[in-house]
Amino acid sequence: MQKETLEQFSQQYKTLLENRLSGAVNELDAPGTLKEAMLYSLEAGGKRIRPLLLFATLKAFGCKPEKGLDAAAAIEMVHTYSLIHDDLPSMDNDDLRRGKPTNHKVYGEAAAILAGDALLTLSFKLLAQLPAEVADGETKLSLVAGLSDAAGAGGMVGGQIADMEGEGRQLTLKELEYIHINKTGRLLMYSVIAGAEIAGASAEVKRTLETFAHHIGLAFQIRDDILDLVGNEAEIGKRVGSDALNEKSTYPALLSLDGAKEALNVHIGQAKELLAQTGLDTDMLEQITNLIGLRKS
Amino acid sequence: MQKETLEQFSQQYKTLLENRLSGAVNELDAPGTLKEAMLYSLEAGGKRIRPLLLFATLKAFGCKPEKGLDAAAAIEMVHTYSLIHDDLPSMDNDDLRRGKPTNHKVYGEAAAILAGDALLTLSFKLLAQLPAEVADGETKLSLVAGLSDAAGAGGMVGGQIADMEGEGRQLTLKELEYIHINKTGRLLMYSVIAGAEIAGASAEVKRTLETFAHHIGLAFQIRDDILDLVGNEAEIGKRVGSDALNEKSTYPALLSLDGAKEALNVHIGQAKELLAQTGLDTDMLEQITNLIGLRKS
Repeated sequence: MQKETLEQFSQQYKTLLENRLSGAVNELDAPGTLKEAMLYSLEAGGKRIRPLLLFATLKAFGCKPEKGLDAAAAIEMVHTYSLIHDDLPSMDNDDLRRGKPTNHKVYGEAAAILAGDALLTLSFKLLAQLPAEVADGETKLSLVAGLSDAAGAGGMVGGQIADMEGEGRQLTLKELEYIHINKTGRLLMYSVIAGAEIAGASAEVKRTLETFAHHIGLAFQIRDDILDLVGNEAEIGKRVGSDALNEKSTYPALLSLDGAKEALNVHIGQAKELLAQTGLDTDMLEQITNLIGLRKS
Repeated sequence: MQKETLEQFSQQYKTLLENRLSGAVNELDAPGTLKEAMLYSLEAGGKRIRPLLLFATLKAFGCKPEKGLDAAAAIEMVHTYSLIHDDLPSMDNDDLRRGKPTNHKVYGEAAAILAGDALLTLSFKLLAQLPAEVADGETKLSLVAGLSDAAGAGGMVGGQIADMEGEGRQLTLKELEYIHINKTGRLLMYSVIAGAEIAGASAEVKRTLETFAHHIGLAFQIRDDILDLVGNEAEIGKRVGSDALNEKSTYPALLSLDGAKEALNVHIGQAKELLAQTGLDTDMLEQITNLIGLRKS
């Protein structure tokens, strides 16, 4: 049997995911404008890297990836809300996201803030109402609390405020890592942990996977910084060089471009080593790890 | 034994609540500015009407109101986040809230948006981690899903967007009620329902209490509109007449001032009748109902 490629896997589960995302919003009894604004950003595409990590983690345990559908949708809603709010004029003030006008450019600031709020709120319901065959009550409660930790003040939101506060001054590597571990890493880690919890992983394997996810989270961000410096605008779908413009500290600025590439390779290498330690069928997780190390957008 | 007054009850449980709110934020491992912005609005005072409703509902069932502490804190966090976001320049653009500068006036728009996001996110964790002696797993999951419904696109956020969309044109009474039932009513209703669920209420009593809460929710809003027209600025802590200024439809505008007062009395009367039907010890809930009908701020 031929090995399933990430591309095949991604196509299959992205379609499932995108249908679930649209379905969850369409079935809401809510004002049309609000649903439209929510759907606009949910349907804007993207790599869906967090859902794919969750699906691939389930696959590693020999579970059907479909089991993670609602949890993946919840995570993607949280990710999407964070993009909508980050793009706002009072935050990063971005006009384009994935080559399309940002949410507030289309629906106005107020609706964009509310669409983000509504997506965040909806995500917790999806987790609380996971089907019984996917997760027992205790697992669902752990998933709710874990998403709150990963996305909240001690996680993603905390990373975002630290990022803003760090603009215009040179950060230390430690400060930069705090920002990225929280702003980007925590939700990536949660995606893997959620898969492991649904699969009923042992505490030890969960810890190994968590460290794996920590490394790919940092790798993801280092690659992001490198792309902002040397990437192709058309492929990325947003302006390159915006970090320098916004006086943001980046890995290449702190470590030089070669140093950043080296750090990227170290994290990718450690991530793969940890995968090997789990004894699971981690081929798809490894393919995602390679993608993170080499992605062009 | 002398009857406990709402004032005594309120003082006792407001203090407990306020300590819990501060504690939940202070224990977060998060950037200082973010915690400060969260605490600023949580500690801004207010009547704490939602927590009091929850505590009084537990009391009606003969449960210790303390059992509702974490759920009450979760609800107050959601209420507080909604005020922070509603006050933003792109929404109601309010400079004052309870006589103090609004969150974004003190911390800036970005931090205010993020403080709101973090409070909303934290609320779900409090519910998921309610102590086992307060709620079993199924009740906790129901509380999480219920808060998401009450606060999300089909509830509070939906009401807020409908409210904004309705500005500058004359609404029908039906449209106005849709807005208020969702923007204000749903979270008030949830406060009562959460208390009933923690107390282990029967489906029938829950339905009666839900209808009770529906009426006090509308009464609350009608009183709000009346106060905006004829209230005392110093007591309310914000400008009066702002509804007219913002061309907002109100009950007095639709029904005349006398008609609005009449509608207020009808809702208060129906609420009390429903309380009597429950056969519970509803004295404190009745005192809150009277407060809602007569409040001056």
